[in-house]
Amino acid sequence: MNVKILLEYDGTNYHGWQRQKNARSIQEVLEEAISAITGEKIRVTGAGRTDAGVHAAGQVANFKTNTRIPVEKLPYAINSRLPDDIVVKEARMVPEEFHARLSAKAKVYSYTIYNAPFPSPLLRNYTYFFPLPLDMGAMKEAASQFVGLHDFSAFRASGSPVKSSVRQINRLEINRCQDLIKIEIEANGFLYNMVRIIAGTLLDAGLHKINPGEVASIIRSGDRDRAGKTLPPQGLCLLKVVY
Amino acid sequence: MNVKILLEYDGTNYHGWQRQKNARSIQEVLEEAISAITGEKIRVTGAGRTDAGVHAAGQVANFKTNTRIPVEKLPYAINSRLPDDIVVKEARMVPEEFHARLSAKAKVYSYTIYNAPFPSPLLRNYTYFFPLPLDMGAMKEAASQFVGLHDFSAFRASGSPVKSSVRQINRLEINRCQDLIKIEIEANGFLYNMVRIIAGTLLDAGLHKINPGEVASIIRSGDRDRAGKTLPPQGLCLLKVVY
Repeated sequence: MNVKILLEYDGTNYHGWQRQKNARSIQEVLEEAISAITGEKIRVTGAGRTDAGVHAAGQVANFKTNTRIPVEKLPYAINSRLPDDIVVKEARMVPEEFHARLSAKAKVYSYTIYNAPFPSPLLRNYTYFFPLPLDMGAMKEAASQFVGLHDFSAFRASGSPVKSSVRQINRLEINRCQDLIKIEIEANGFLYNMVRIIAGTLLDAGLHKINPGEVASIIRSGDRDRAGKTLPPQGLCLLKVVY
Repeated sequence: MNVKILLEYDGTNYHGWQRQKNARSIQEVLEEAISAITGEKIRVTGAGRTDAGVHAAGQVANFKTNTRIPVEKLPYAINSRLPDDIVVKEARMVPEEFHARLSAKAKVYSYTIYNAPFPSPLLRNYTYFFPLPLDMGAMKEAASQFVGLHDFSAFRASGSPVKSSVRQINRLEINRCQDLIKIEIEANGFLYNMVRIIAGTLLDAGLHKINPGEVASIIRSGDRDRAGKTLPPQGLCLLKVVY
């Protein structure tokens, strides 16, 4: 059967989702746990290939198995073999053709900035600390221009493999609650580092380093150098995958 | 001069506030940092002696120093010597007689329960995970009976040194927001483990293991065995000290 699982993880101590040599990845730890309980060699496909230090509240993955463990018992069985920074919250049988990444219609990421004079020990692994005052009005104005179907070449890590860089951003919200500025982005797909570069560009707007009205022209330019810095990974969280 | 500092810390990797042999404490790490920047042997007094694994968003401490570093620069200087799980957020000169613990009029603690079917990796160090359904109405009714001046003998760790166990609880709020149940308690002082035992008793009320109306009689009984379990430290956070 093909099993779809919903996952939450704290990415602090992992080198990202994707299996790699000489570094501990979420995928590897998960595959080892599922292989151990099913007695099969399990290969897991994730919806989003989160980077080192990036978190997930709602990552989705799927794997094929012939296990006789009832699907509703799988989360408990798998969790019993996982460290406490990775948890399976749901497992469901899905059609054979379901593919966690290719079947996804949209994904939602959040990027959280802790904007206060001093860093927060309690939030240090889940937010990006930025002490200078930020103009929320300018950030909101800049944010609105990302929504829609655009070529986001200016908002992807340089050296990314050459494929289409056109994506549809369905929604980009930015709100402040006390010292936290939360950016939430839903798109049909994301380029490498796209959310972290968008967050860096919004930060530049908040600092008046760019004019918020300039965002549309930065997008059109396709010029990575005109967009903002790639903000660090710990502020990023994969919230949800939409099918 | 006598300096009052405001502190935030993540208690996960410390054996509590108080200096002790063979274990790393917040107090020790802080004293080493301040001693290093002032060149004096500094002794720090904390308002609340938080236990191992307990956090603080608003701990207060004071220390005497002859340093010539301006008081407003002290947080930056001290933070440069602290690990990133302890941060000084404010420093002020206070009268010589100010004592962080003895001068405190009240303290506010929060205890947070993560009440969902599966544990949360992202919240695991800052909440107590409890999967069974809880009756919020019963918890609120139980909570209301703690407010006031009472002998809280039933709500302190057995074997605590024999001193007065009469305390005034000014406020005890309990609210649910999605999967988080947050208990906030303000009192003129707390007995050893008092908040964690009160939280355990509210949990018993939420499970209908005790009748919420019973709380007044448990308080009167002074019987530790009738109160709930001591919930684990990671859900506890010292929010504020009132002077």
